[in-house]
Amino acid sequence: MLLKVYVDLRSQPCRALIIFLKNTKIPFEIETINLRTGDHKKPEFVKITPLCTLPAIQDGDFSLGETVAIIRYLATKYSDLVPDHWYPKDLKKRARVDEYMAFHHTGTRGGCCGIFISEVLIPLYSGGKQHASEERLKRDEENLTKQIDKLETAFLQDNDWLAGDDISVADVLAVSEIMENTVNGRDVAEGRPKLRAFIDRVKNRLNPVFDEVHEALYAFRDSYNK
Amino acid sequence: MLLKVYVDLRSQPCRALIIFLKNTKIPFEIETINLRTGDHKKPEFVKITPLCTLPAIQDGDFSLGETVAIIRYLATKYSDLVPDHWYPKDLKKRARVDEYMAFHHTGTRGGCCGIFISEVLIPLYSGGKQHASEERLKRDEENLTKQIDKLETAFLQDNDWLAGDDISVADVLAVSEIMENTVNGRDVAEGRPKLRAFIDRVKNRLNPVFDEVHEALYAFRDSYNK
Ligand SMILES: N[C@@H](CCC(=O)N[C@@H](CS)C(=O)NCC(=O)O)C(=O)O
Ligand SMILES: N[C@@H](CCC(=O)N[C@@H](CS)C(=O)NCC(=O)O)C(=O)O
Repeated sequence: MLLKVYVDLRSQPCRALIIFLKNTKIPFEIETINLRTGDHKKPEFVKITPLCTLPAIQDGDFSLGETVAIIRYLATKYSDLVPDHWYPKDLKKRARVDEYMAFHHTGTRGGCCGIFISEVLIPLYSGGKQHASEERLKRDEENLTKQIDKLETAFLQDNDWLAGDDISVADVLAVSEIMENTVNGRDVAEGRPKLRAFIDRVKNRLNPVFDEVHEALYAFRDSYNK
Repeated sequence: MLLKVYVDLRSQPCRALIIFLKNTKIPFEIETINLRTGDHKKPEFVKITPLCTLPAIQDGDFSLGETVAIIRYLATKYSDLVPDHWYPKDLKKRARVDEYMAFHHTGTRGGCCGIFISEVLIPLYSGGKQHASEERLKRDEENLTKQIDKLETAFLQDNDWLAGDDISVADVLAVSEIMENTVNGRDVAEGRPKLRAFIDRVKNRLNPVFDEVHEALYAFRDSYNK
């Protein structure tokens, strides 16, 4: 049975996982689970992962949630099909990628997601009836700045990539989150030339796959801003 | 040079790391960094980790931040000194622990930390001058309930441990976070008999080390409630 990957490509970690997979030789098939219609809460999907989050995988009789756990599992199981730089086997190099992936949840993702939920998802999911309070928006904005500051000072610094001397899953995870805020017109790289150069570097390295996988986001951005 | 572990034992992930280490044969020494006096932001510590968070380690010429990255690095480097159940080598068993460790950041830790910061740290660090708003407290409470629900439905279920058939780093990370809320008198296990039994199971399994490592927290709790 082919590895099954459950995603909704409007979701940042789903895009990151698919971009990673498309850069490996791991055979897989995509199964789309629609977050907007709540398909991730349906009994069939609860059986795949009781976390009820995307992405998730089914590999034979083994199913797993949580992006970074999935990446580790796949990079270990199919290590001969994954170019080493994506998740290096060398102990210290791997530790650097792991360090970023641990930071990522409340760091880049925490910062980018908070303001996206407040500015986009709360109004959208309530049909325009609910809006985040000023207080909440202010905290989300402050947290975005704080986390992107940390991304720059603790990881990017003067390097080309976040964790090591070549592109890794860390870079893909980070840029996938940053892209989300293009929907609400936030330029996370404003006033941050090194970050901007980094984002472009990641895109260039990953294209045409980057844009292909981001098509659903671009469509969302365009319809949202019409 | 002995492995150096930088901690402040009032911090949850620091306690988790030290409990883990004390259950291995890895030789290490503790260096205390006082979070309250801002020692984690001083230049000497920035050199250890520009993340400026605890815990962190220095192992020869290699330094690393982020608890779960540290655990992985140590369990790999010193694999013969770490009983396997703490972070199993078996692919699928390890993936289950990884899945929990990925959930942990915004899950158990996210839920427990939010309300702790609002109820304890904001007043404490401002000398009683600042208090979290009602709106913020309500969101933190809702999030605590949501994340602990997830902990139960996606991980604990009817099992003895969170990720596998023996204790692992997942259990230690989770209970260290839950303990923090004893300071503000929140019983996270209220109305959750399975969770309560689980917490007791972890404590019993880990004592006397559990209580030793929690001494700083117990002292904080007692002085806070005087
Ligand atoms: N830490 C998780 C986050 C997964 C996550 O929250 N995915 C979102 C989409 S971006 C989701 O499934 N949300 C549905 C929900 O939480 O109900 C991971 O990296 O996989
Ligand atoms: N994801 C990090 C969290 C570490 C963390 O935030 N530690 C807190 C203490 S519990 C800290 O150092 N806070 C200081 C700060 O953020 O300025 C980990 O697991 O190591």
